[in-house]
Amino acid sequence: MSKQILSIVEGDSAGTSSSILKLKNMLSELNTQDISEMFDELDRENIVKLFRILPKAVAADVFAHIDSDHQQIIVDALSDIEIGEIMGELFVDDAVDFIEEMPASVVKRVLMTVPAEKRTLINQILQYPEDSAGSIMTTEYVDLREDATVREAFEDIRNTGVTKETIYNCYVIRRDRLLVGVVSAKTLMLSKPREKIGDIMDTNIVFAHTTDDREVIADKFRKYSLLAMPVVDLEQRLVGIITVDDIMQVMVEESTEDMEIMGALTPSDDPYLKTGIFRLAKNRVLWLLVLMLSATITGSIISSFEDGLAVLPALIAFIPMLMGTGGNAGAQSSTLIIRGIAVGEISLKDVLRVVWKEIRVGAVCGLSLGIINFLRVYIMGERNPFLILTVTLALFCTIIIAKTIGGFLPILAKKVKIDPAIMAAPVITTAVDATSLMVYFSIAKVLFRL
Amino acid sequence: MSKQILSIVEGDSAGTSSSILKLKNMLSELNTQDISEMFDELDRENIVKLFRILPKAVAADVFAHIDSDHQQIIVDALSDIEIGEIMGELFVDDAVDFIEEMPASVVKRVLMTVPAEKRTLINQILQYPEDSAGSIMTTEYVDLREDATVREAFEDIRNTGVTKETIYNCYVIRRDRLLVGVVSAKTLMLSKPREKIGDIMDTNIVFAHTTDDREVIADKFRKYSLLAMPVVDLEQRLVGIITVDDIMQVMVEESTEDMEIMGALTPSDDPYLKTGIFRLAKNRVLWLLVLMLSATITGSIISSFEDGLAVLPALIAFIPMLMGTGGNAGAQSSTLIIRGIAVGEISLKDVLRVVWKEIRVGAVCGLSLGIINFLRVYIMGERNPFLILTVTLALFCTIIIAKTIGGFLPILAKKVKIDPAIMAAPVITTAVDATSLMVYFSIAKVLFRL
Repeated sequence: MSKQILSIVEGDSAGTSSSILKLKNMLSELNTQDISEMFDELDRENIVKLFRILPKAVAADVFAHIDSDHQQIIVDALSDIEIGEIMGELFVDDAVDFIEEMPASVVKRVLMTVPAEKRTLINQILQYPEDSAGSIMTTEYVDLREDATVREAFEDIRNTGVTKETIYNCYVIRRDRLLVGVVSAKTLMLSKPREKIGDIMDTNIVFAHTTDDREVIADKFRKYSLLAMPVVDLEQRLVGIITVDDIMQVMVEESTEDMEIMGALTPSDDPYLKTGIFRLAKNRVLWLLVLMLSATITGSIISSFEDGLAVLPALIAFIPMLMGTGGNAGAQSSTLIIRGIAVGEISLKDVLRVVWKEIRVGAVCGLSLGIINFLRVYIMGERNPFLILTVTLALFCTIIIAKTIGGFLPILAKKVKIDPAIMAAPVITTAVDATSLMVYFSIAKVLFRL
Repeated sequence: MSKQILSIVEGDSAGTSSSILKLKNMLSELNTQDISEMFDELDRENIVKLFRILPKAVAADVFAHIDSDHQQIIVDALSDIEIGEIMGELFVDDAVDFIEEMPASVVKRVLMTVPAEKRTLINQILQYPEDSAGSIMTTEYVDLREDATVREAFEDIRNTGVTKETIYNCYVIRRDRLLVGVVSAKTLMLSKPREKIGDIMDTNIVFAHTTDDREVIADKFRKYSLLAMPVVDLEQRLVGIITVDDIMQVMVEESTEDMEIMGALTPSDDPYLKTGIFRLAKNRVLWLLVLMLSATITGSIISSFEDGLAVLPALIAFIPMLMGTGGNAGAQSSTLIIRGIAVGEISLKDVLRVVWKEIRVGAVCGLSLGIINFLRVYIMGERNPFLILTVTLALFCTIIIAKTIGGFLPILAKKVKIDPAIMAAPVITTAVDATSLMVYFSIAKVLFRL
């Protein structure tokens, strides 16, 4: 269906009234999201053409879903009146998302088309810190009074519900917008028409403050299986709500951020394919630099053992295997602990349990790998018992140390209020590299009396 | 509040009727989720004690939320009749989750208490493959007929809604349970009582098949901002629904799985602190082994250059820096590409764009790090121009190669239908280690005529 529409839009006859009618019919059968995706396939001119064909009812919704590049193309082509119509239809949170991506000149022009009241709301939300509850909330919600009846509530919803982002949770407020309860549409539907909202509302409200971090809010949504959450200011006055669809977006973005930090990247929201070379390089070079300079410590450990290596050059060949295995063993532990902290399974008080666990897991892994490595070295023809013993012992100790470091550092980071995700593979690898070499060379020194 | 309750439950006077009344009052003010968490703090005996005090209305809901260890303790202490009451209240998906974690003897006893009809449903869902739509769906949904009126639909919901997992999406079916449309509670509330469901329903349905992968379903929930999704069998007959609260759980579990695979772990759902040493070791040892044996290739490259290193031992000290930086540079790229594939931003057709991008980003990073490393080496007193040139050139080439490999391998994995997450730091590091050494030694051979 999408392909057919695209070919008509891009064709020569796109302007004729019969093809427009045909397009409108086809578009009406498609989902907003599917229509939005078609814009990715079109050039500048056809983007505007397709957008103008959209039925009024879906145009604003589609606009909220398309890329900011495409939003700008459309805004540049529309008249102020047309922009005003779209802005009037957009939910406040979608309007804010759109405005945040626009250059200053476009923002000015767009805000001019918005009625003063909505403009104030938008400006307010724009001022909340990034990643805070305030910055992702919307202001279109249903509010009710305690002394209203269920029947009145239904009337209220029928009259205003179509412009609300959700009607499935209604918020009960007193004068001064003080939040006192929440009542779900389910409760309303299962209650008698004459019952009072104050009697059926739930006063045990899970809410957020405007400055709460969005990751914490996402955890609460998951924990309490919420569809929406009210946001209040410091005086407990209702200022907005957050809906679960935005939270799913937050969950994906937060996981991406964690993975990027764990991969030694400066996290960024920009989609990879649309980000320029220098921007991508900038997000990578800082950590590479830090880790490169740390790795020179490892180099100087090797240098300090140069004489020993000159006497016994066979030791050199095992260095990559030891460093690599140590790094991977530590990375495994840190991955589990970082994730455990992120999903709330592991907290600061578990530090001793984690370390003790990692020491024992390290011993089991070290023993298994030690035996297999011993066999491999022997089968490949190495017969010097001291060399085999040195490598096997060093491997065993390295794995235990790596696992202990990998388990401990993320918790330490949490303790000193750094993001534990920083203590992932790259940092652990660098830390373990130096340690494993020191262990290796120390054992060699003792066994070979170097 | 929770602490107060816990201290009463654990106290001596917990059995007296006055303290039970007090507890019931306090519990009635708490959220199901908060009550569930209290069970983590109690011992065997008090777990049963607290559970028995819970009001009937919340007991089943709490039961669905607590740890499987605690579920078993409770089931062991209850009579068959009591178990039957809980099972009767549980949603089918929660019942399935519970039964999946129980040992066979408990499963048998529990299923005996369930009416035949529900037992058949539970057994059916238990048979769907793990991670499929069928295995996470529930069967408590509202279904409507096309010829019903809005008024009749409301009556239907009022009569049966309290036992449904969601009433916010109602599914319109024909005879034989053929799914033909969906109508939201919002649409119902905004429609006139006499309108026919068939006229107001949405026929453009986003649905899943029972065998669809849950990760794909989670993506659809996010893309289309869904609260629930119908699940149909091969004949398009409605068999269940999936709700957004379960999908939030899936999203977290899928991210955890990706991170574990990226950290060279065999993924596992078991919470870290409750998993035994040998189980943890088992999830780690396989990958460690594979990577350890691969690392011996790197070792043999060093061995083959032993004569060169004997002549110029200063080369050895730079090996960790080169291998480390190469590994990290490659890990950065693979992290971005793996995540890009997972969230649908990068697909197979982008392979050339990705590789070309990574080559250029690698050049920028390689140049920056090369210059800084040059300065560092010079400042630290190294004056052999050939050595400095060898290290700088090798670093530059290693970073470009590492970034290209890191960008390419995840897409290749996707192409041959392996999980791209496997191509993360550990694998890339091992692959890049060998490459960087070969580059380093080749340059050294040419420049020093070794």
